[in-house]
Amino acid sequence: MPSENKSTQPGIMTTNSYGKSRVRLTKIVREGGIHNIKELTIDIQIQGEFDRAFRSGDNSQIVATDSMKNTVYALAAKNEFDSIEEFGGILAEHFIRTYKHVSGVTIEIEEDLWQRVVLDGKAHPHAFFGAGGEKRWCQVATDRTRATVSSGIRDLRVVKTTASEFWGFIRDEYTTLPEVRDRIFGATIASTWVFDKADHDFNLCYEKIRSAIIEVFATHHSLSVQQTLYEAGQRALDRCNSVKSISLIMPNQHRVPFNLEPFKLENTNQIFVTTDEPYGLISATISRK
Amino acid sequence: MPSENKSTQPGIMTTNSYGKSRVRLTKIVREGGIHNIKELTIDIQIQGEFDRAFRSGDNSQIVATDSMKNTVYALAAKNEFDSIEEFGGILAEHFIRTYKHVSGVTIEIEEDLWQRVVLDGKAHPHAFFGAGGEKRWCQVATDRTRATVSSGIRDLRVVKTTASEFWGFIRDEYTTLPEVRDRIFGATIASTWVFDKADHDFNLCYEKIRSAIIEVFATHHSLSVQQTLYEAGQRALDRCNSVKSISLIMPNQHRVPFNLEPFKLENTNQIFVTTDEPYGLISATISRK
Amino acid sequence: MPSENKSTQPGIMTTNSYGKSRVRLTKIVREGGIHNIKELTIDIQIQGEFDRAFRSGDNSQIVATDSMKNTVYALAAKNEFDSIEEFGGILAEHFIRTYKHVSGVTIEIEEDLWQRVVLDGKAHPHAFFGAGGEKRWCQVATDRTRATVSSGIRDLRVVKTTASEFWGFIRDEYTTLPEVRDRIFGATIASTWVFDKADHDFNLCYEKIRSAIIEVFATHHSLSVQQTLYEAGQRALDRCNSVKSISLIMPNQHRVPFNLEPFKLENTNQIFVTTDEPYGLISATISRK
Amino acid sequence: MPSENKSTQPGIMTTNSYGKSRVRLTKIVREGGIHNIKELTIDIQIQGEFDRAFRSGDNSQIVATDSMKNTVYALAAKNEFDSIEEFGGILAEHFIRTYKHVSGVTIEIEEDLWQRVVLDGKAHPHAFFGAGGEKRWCQVATDRTRATVSSGIRDLRVVKTTASEFWGFIRDEYTTLPEVRDRIFGATIASTWVFDKADHDFNLCYEKIRSAIIEVFATHHSLSVQQTLYEAGQRALDRCNSVKSISLIMPNQHRVPFNLEPFKLENTNQIFVTTDEPYGLISATISRK
Repeated sequence: MPSENKSTQPGIMTTNSYGKSRVRLTKIVREGGIHNIKELTIDIQIQGEFDRAFRSGDNSQIVATDSMKNTVYALAAKNEFDSIEEFGGILAEHFIRTYKHVSGVTIEIEEDLWQRVVLDGKAHPHAFFGAGGEKRWCQVATDRTRATVSSGIRDLRVVKTTASEFWGFIRDEYTTLPEVRDRIFGATIASTWVFDKADHDFNLCYEKIRSAIIEVFATHHSLSVQQTLYEAGQRALDRCNSVKSISLIMPNQHRVPFNLEPFKLENTNQIFVTTDEPYGLISATISRK
Repeated sequence: MPSENKSTQPGIMTTNSYGKSRVRLTKIVREGGIHNIKELTIDIQIQGEFDRAFRSGDNSQIVATDSMKNTVYALAAKNEFDSIEEFGGILAEHFIRTYKHVSGVTIEIEEDLWQRVVLDGKAHPHAFFGAGGEKRWCQVATDRTRATVSSGIRDLRVVKTTASEFWGFIRDEYTTLPEVRDRIFGATIASTWVFDKADHDFNLCYEKIRSAIIEVFATHHSLSVQQTLYEAGQRALDRCNSVKSISLIMPNQHRVPFNLEPFKLENTNQIFVTTDEPYGLISATISRK
Repeated sequence: MPSENKSTQPGIMTTNSYGKSRVRLTKIVREGGIHNIKELTIDIQIQGEFDRAFRSGDNSQIVATDSMKNTVYALAAKNEFDSIEEFGGILAEHFIRTYKHVSGVTIEIEEDLWQRVVLDGKAHPHAFFGAGGEKRWCQVATDRTRATVSSGIRDLRVVKTTASEFWGFIRDEYTTLPEVRDRIFGATIASTWVFDKADHDFNLCYEKIRSAIIEVFATHHSLSVQQTLYEAGQRALDRCNSVKSISLIMPNQHRVPFNLEPFKLENTNQIFVTTDEPYGLISATISRK
Repeated sequence: MPSENKSTQPGIMTTNSYGKSRVRLTKIVREGGIHNIKELTIDIQIQGEFDRAFRSGDNSQIVATDSMKNTVYALAAKNEFDSIEEFGGILAEHFIRTYKHVSGVTIEIEEDLWQRVVLDGKAHPHAFFGAGGEKRWCQVATDRTRATVSSGIRDLRVVKTTASEFWGFIRDEYTTLPEVRDRIFGATIASTWVFDKADHDFNLCYEKIRSAIIEVFATHHSLSVQQTLYEAGQRALDRCNSVKSISLIMPNQHRVPFNLEPFKLENTNQIFVTTDEPYGLISATISRK
């Protein structure tokens, strides 16, 4: 590098973080002849005293991201765990305990979901099929004083074909949308909830909150995406007391009525153009009072 | 365009085709209070006497692809249909009948699958959630003499955690793969089957063949992907007599045992690296004798 | 909705936001016979007094996201702009000025980049080809007191085949990575920089910072991704005085030497497996002193 | 497997094929201090006498797909090659020559393209940036009598902002598209050309045909996508005598004029909605007379 290219170092580093992303783990657990499969994708990020690596390439404080990857597989072998939150806690604890100069660790885990094949009404012991794009997710973030556990759902795709209205909104010079009393409401929901302490029945909470969201989506007579989202958040807090707040994100994936008039046909709310973009995006966080 | 840029026309056009791709349709059918939703993506291609358009930009024989799109929505409004194969037939028939200079029409339809939400054990009348990445598919290809209907499954994701072996293969200078008596077998299966005539219970066949494939995948003790694929094809032919041939494609999505020896741990066939690439790709067509 | 399903409303809404995402705009500007094309994807989010919509479905304060979409196209027609930052400012200003109950607006714009076709050494007046996956990006965030403009690059894909080392890192029980004095360094860089005030030559800054990052990537003898990232940030601050801080994210996309020993071949640092995952992920923010 | 589940074997296998897909190779070639990088993704498929594997799980004729992967890396180390076509030929020849029971081999290679970084007008010896989504592609297909080499371009993204018309097409009951004398024409072109013999300057042909396509796209006054595609094919045959036929596929990626009338604005052919779907899809093959 020509010396004239060296910068004058006008800045100081105010934040930094590094780690390994998309470490993909399949773990098989066998209980008698019954097999369970977990397929997880793990992201690790650590913060701490790494200034010398950034400023001068002195790597003596650097935990190689390759070692982080090895650690995931080794700790998965050494430990039993019932939930991704538990495994996230094991990983976070390992890094913060082992490396004294690490001040913060964030573990994110996404779980691909598999459903057991059922043949003649019987669950198969070792064959599974993909349970769709929906994923379970968690984040365990820890510093030297406390750990925060968040859990979530990603890519929960839902649609309802009625019981959704949208009217009474602001009409001004840029408004062309007609008011509608019966529309399709489709969304690919993401939700994240935060626990008030680190030790919970994460699996039970996941099932309860997932059910609450789907139940509200199905049964709530919606006057706006906002209203349905809000009620889903309230219902989730009702169902799981250890959750202190929940965020929901609902993209409003529009199905646009197709204009059949040029063809002298009536569209009796039956024929729609399915669209991916643009889409409405509504989000809120509901916190326990 | 400067005249010197005109080519010397050294070639003749040996094939051509055109049409509209990814026409996306949502159709709601209401039976009493029970709603059904169909979400289809339709591709249309036509062949015929279009030489003047290609050679001189004379569009007098051209059906605009925008008109094809309109036709999809209009015919979806005008017609009832129970299967994508039936709607594909309606579309193919329309284009070949309406435009005398069209010699061939190919319609492909992919169906996004939705599952009805179940609350307290009861199927909900109008709320649905996404049934995963798996899609149902069909192709209706017609010329002026006959129509061929093919049906299929796309992206059926499966995994089994045992009852899969692979050994006895050729070992030579480029072989490093160990023989294995117990491995994970994962695949995202695609299958296409061809009917012997155009008039069938397409929905029933789809269910039967889908079941046959999953059943074989789950229960067959696999000595190779090839062997399992072959048996799945045979089973499908057994289950659906109107099918004259079936093709299956099985990518072998490897889960690679992670080497835990450096960490003085034993991998008791439990810890694997999930990989997307490279992957084995095995395919075959089984035709009725 | 059965009344027993109503939640007890245990929570309060602590944050909310909504808007339209992926509004896609093509704008052609003609200067004499010379055409310019801008292809932008715009995301809008607003915050404000929307509690009634969330709590009771009263939409009287709601600006429909469809109206937001219309506004994008109408304001693109009414206004000339030289940069995405300028257009982002026009949009943010419009929403905050028009709707008194809106307290915050965030506009994000991503620009697809096109390069002019060159024929016989001459730039073509109206034909373009895609300049790759790289995108230009900005965010304009405004409340009633001030606007913050951030600009950025997304998906700048780079690779260097030498002048990258990695050694001297922590070796412990989970370390297997060998030290290496000559490796491939590949990344898909994202960078975001923040301006100290809203009125700048955004285009010039973009060019200067993009050049600085590529120049450092190419010429810096790298002892770690961290070190190269840090120097790139410093260099960018050197080049553009109106920027008060810059963040960089560098995934370390590994090319793994393939073990040729089983085939009695030597790998003279020539043959690598290209991988997408897992990958190292390094980030930092450098702020002007 | 319960014996009652065994199929009755109603079918015979009419085709089969297998191999390894997405083998990803990075090869660095150093000439003095100048480095060249090739990043290739290779798919291998073989046909032959594999009936026993399919029918009974006897793998004694099976070349493991893992061995195919090893072979790619080993042959990349052992051989110099100037083009993907040449490397494809080396691989195809290896498999057909080594395994007597293999009757057919198809190698497909896709090349990620990198551009050399230029600093102060000088090409950098070892730093590169991504040349976009465009890829170079080839297929070498061989049986025991002859080899066919096809080459191609994938994902060549182009747009022109004028000199494109579309009118005079069929107007009937399903036509709503207005005739237009000045429209945007955007496409992501794929082209495949077939050589008349296996030994050619593949790199030169690639450059000439790529230029011909871009040149026609830019300079041809288009009355339809069909016409432009046809002329591009003719021009390519003109430029490269060793090519015996060329196929082009042009999706017509519509930019739809946005209706500004509701806002009392005129759209002077300036403001468009960029769309991905649906799209027109036009293809043809031009063969040398």
